Amino acid sequence: MENLRKYLAECIGTFFLVFVGTTTAVIFNPKAGIPSIVGIALAFGLALMMVYYTFGRFSGGHVNPAVSLAKFFDNQLDLPELIGYIIAQIVGAILGSLALFVILKNIPNVQISVYGLGANGFGSQSSTNFTLTGALFTEIILTAMFVLVVLGVTSKSEYNGIGGFVIGLALTVVHLIGIPLTGTSVNPARSLAPALVLAISTGKTVALSQVWVFIVAPLIGALLATIIWKAFNLDK
Amino acid sequence: MENLRKYLAECIGTFFLVFVGTTTAVIFNPKAGIPSIVGIALAFGLALMMVYYTFGRFSGGHVNPAVSLAKFFDNQLDLPELIGYIIAQIVGAILGSLALFVILKNIPNVQISVYGLGANGFGSQSSTNFTLTGALFTEIILTAMFVLVVLGVTSKSEYNGIGGFVIGLALTVVHLIGIPLTGTSVNPARSLAPALVLAISTGKTVALSQVWVFIVAPLIGALLATIIWKAFNLDK
Amino acid sequence: MENLRKYLAECIGTFFLVFVGTTTAVIFNPKAGIPSIVGIALAFGLALMMVYYTFGRFSGGHVNPAVSLAKFFDNQLDLPELIGYIIAQIVGAILGSLALFVILKNIPNVQISVYGLGANGFGSQSSTNFTLTGALFTEIILTAMFVLVVLGVTSKSEYNGIGGFVIGLALTVVHLIGIPLTGTSVNPARSLAPALVLAISTGKTVALSQVWVFIVAPLIGALLATIIWKAFNLDK
Amino acid sequence: MENLRKYLAECIGTFFLVFVGTTTAVIFNPKAGIPSIVGIALAFGLALMMVYYTFGRFSGGHVNPAVSLAKFFDNQLDLPELIGYIIAQIVGAILGSLALFVILKNIPNVQISVYGLGANGFGSQSSTNFTLTGALFTEIILTAMFVLVVLGVTSKSEYNGIGGFVIGLALTVVHLIGIPLTGTSVNPARSLAPALVLAISTGKTVALSQVWVFIVAPLIGALLATIIWKAFNLDK
Repeated sequence: MENLRKYLAECIGTFFLVFVGTTTAVIFNPKAGIPSIVGIALAFGLALMMVYYTFGRFSGGHVNPAVSLAKFFDNQLDLPELIGYIIAQIVGAILGSLALFVILKNIPNVQISVYGLGANGFGSQSSTNFTLTGALFTEIILTAMFVLVVLGVTSKSEYNGIGGFVIGLALTVVHLIGIPLTGTSVNPARSLAPALVLAISTGKTVALSQVWVFIVAPLIGALLATIIWKAFNLDK
Repeated sequence: MENLRKYLAECIGTFFLVFVGTTTAVIFNPKAGIPSIVGIALAFGLALMMVYYTFGRFSGGHVNPAVSLAKFFDNQLDLPELIGYIIAQIVGAILGSLALFVILKNIPNVQISVYGLGANGFGSQSSTNFTLTGALFTEIILTAMFVLVVLGVTSKSEYNGIGGFVIGLALTVVHLIGIPLTGTSVNPARSLAPALVLAISTGKTVALSQVWVFIVAPLIGALLATIIWKAFNLDK
Repeated sequence: MENLRKYLAECIGTFFLVFVGTTTAVIFNPKAGIPSIVGIALAFGLALMMVYYTFGRFSGGHVNPAVSLAKFFDNQLDLPELIGYIIAQIVGAILGSLALFVILKNIPNVQISVYGLGANGFGSQSSTNFTLTGALFTEIILTAMFVLVVLGVTSKSEYNGIGGFVIGLALTVVHLIGIPLTGTSVNPARSLAPALVLAISTGKTVALSQVWVFIVAPLIGALLATIIWKAFNLDK
Repeated sequence: MENLRKYLAECIGTFFLVFVGTTTAVIFNPKAGIPSIVGIALAFGLALMMVYYTFGRFSGGHVNPAVSLAKFFDNQLDLPELIGYIIAQIVGAILGSLALFVILKNIPNVQISVYGLGANGFGSQSSTNFTLTGALFTEIILTAMFVLVVLGVTSKSEYNGIGGFVIGLALTVVHLIGIPLTGTSVNPARSLAPALVLAISTGKTVALSQVWVFIVAPLIGALLATIIWKAFNLDK
């Protein structure tokens, strides 16, 4: 029962994050310039803030396999829980992409194969034609920074009240940097869902063929963050 | 006396929300692009934040019949209170639309029949020609998300201090998504008032003819949120 | 000694508010559109937030004669203190306008008589040619809303930690509405200083001839807020 | 061990600040207008917020020689610590500029000698051709304001929870003013690193030749802030 509640919280929470984030990412096309970037970055960050204050008490509000992996390395989750969390996150993310799909279907003259569903990408799929090497480098650094903030703020009870804004707006910060480069993943579930739904619904598989970058790099970033965090707390 | 104070708080609070939100929605025409959307979304959210910290102690600061309905389902209001809250909210919302009306009358060369009063809409009344089905779908989901956050954050006393920012910026998030689609209601009082004042003052009734969507969908969304929230707290 | 510290806090605090707010108001010309309005509104609000957390402990951080008047009506200041506060606020505001003057003098090809110093105005001095009646109406309502939030949040110790953001971002909200109309005063000291420094330095007296509106209306708004607040707390 | 942890915290923290801030400053070219300025100002401020909640517990989270100098004057650091902090901050800042360098190298058709690395400047290096005198004046005032907020908020334990947002968004405020003028330093390490990395990698030394302004003025501003703060606390 307790575990079911956790997985349900992660599932609905990831729905919140992916639905809000990718919907604004499509509606505010990031190629349209700075205001779009700021607006999308705020949407992702404040959606995560909503999750923290609503579902955080049940599951921790990770809504991100990279965060769950870091919590696993930090011995806050065991392996079966980690697997359950990740499955729940992927299901929630897919539901988020499907909700965006329904919305786009109800806007006349919008072709989903052209607009996409807010998937991440590099090369021809990046608004700056950012390289594969650049994408790996950037996603590792951004995820490490984001996960360090999560590990830091959740380890001090004094910050419980403000924590959702710290974590949420840290996600906003990494989006301010990453949107023009890769669209910003730092979250494998957030990247997998739109790529998968786009491939199945329209047959366009380019995002799905690149999605390994946005699975591998965030997981490496999470590992890096855990190592740095453990180094800081060696004698504790 | 205590009830009078509650209703007065809801009335003035809804005035704050509708006056601030719809005034920026008209002055920052959302068809003008992303900066308008971000600005309007912040205005709605931060107006609700103001209400929470000023009037929340007297009435809870719902300023939204959908929120009051969820609190009624959650046994925090009885039926006479629910009716009183909703009447107070509608009166406050109408006062907000009237204040916007006065402001527009004092800007030379502004025709209210063209600018409108920030009513919600679909089809020809939506900047993306969003369909009726889409409007119902989106308003139900957005209201359910918003009300879940309200139920979540107000049920944990640790979040009392930060609560106004959580609820306010959750309203900002749903506006980031909804403004280009329906203008974002998630609040029947906020939708009824400008449609009514516009119809009476200029004879334009199209917004009023669509307002049922923005009454029905938010109430369904609030019900959905209550069911989900109760499911999470089954054994408590 | 204690009083000297209070007045010094109000003087430096009002310098912060007026320097930050009017400098961005001139550099981000509000006629340039929505992003300017959002940027200026954030600058005013976050400058007030800075004052709250730095000088609030010494003087309350009013930095606004309308707020001090409300605190006087609420018996939190006596008459000699009220006078001392207002003088300190005016001196600080003038220093803020002078600092903006120095900055503009160091930007090549900027004519202060054209750019102005961020004074408030109506009619030909408003970017929407807003009428005198409209200006009085709007400034009274916006000040009443702002002062109600100040009275509300500062009367509950639970909100001490978050208070600076509540008050600051309430000021942001009233600026989102007021910038296209009057430029937003809600603060007689903030309006008097740029009008005075502009008149003395360039001989342009139009802002100074209108400044009575931005003294009278905010003071009426503060009185209105105090009456409403006292009504809510009648039996306490 | 304890000191090593402090220096490591300052090093990684300054990496966060400089990497986030200067990357957005280059990607969102501030000459592009107001939305860029708001976006960059938020990036700098929220990066500092991230540092506060993650590394603040280890080192105080200064990530700025001007702040460390003020803490030294305020007897919170001794001289060897001050030197260690400043070295760690400069190393971290250089790593931040190098990370930006790597990112730019992975965007096709970007010439770093044209785009730069987000260094500060005056005269021909300022988007408004701001004079040297203006740059000194502005950087002294902005640093004094920022450091006063840091000294104020960190001296009251009631503000520990919210402190990262107060300090971070105070940095945002000074950037709103300073970006069109000098790009905003208020932090010698943040100015030195991009100027140095740009000179070494591209041979362009103009930013490095101006960097003394952004070392001298922030340190004077920090001294000024300490004097004002001590005056307010004379009898304590």
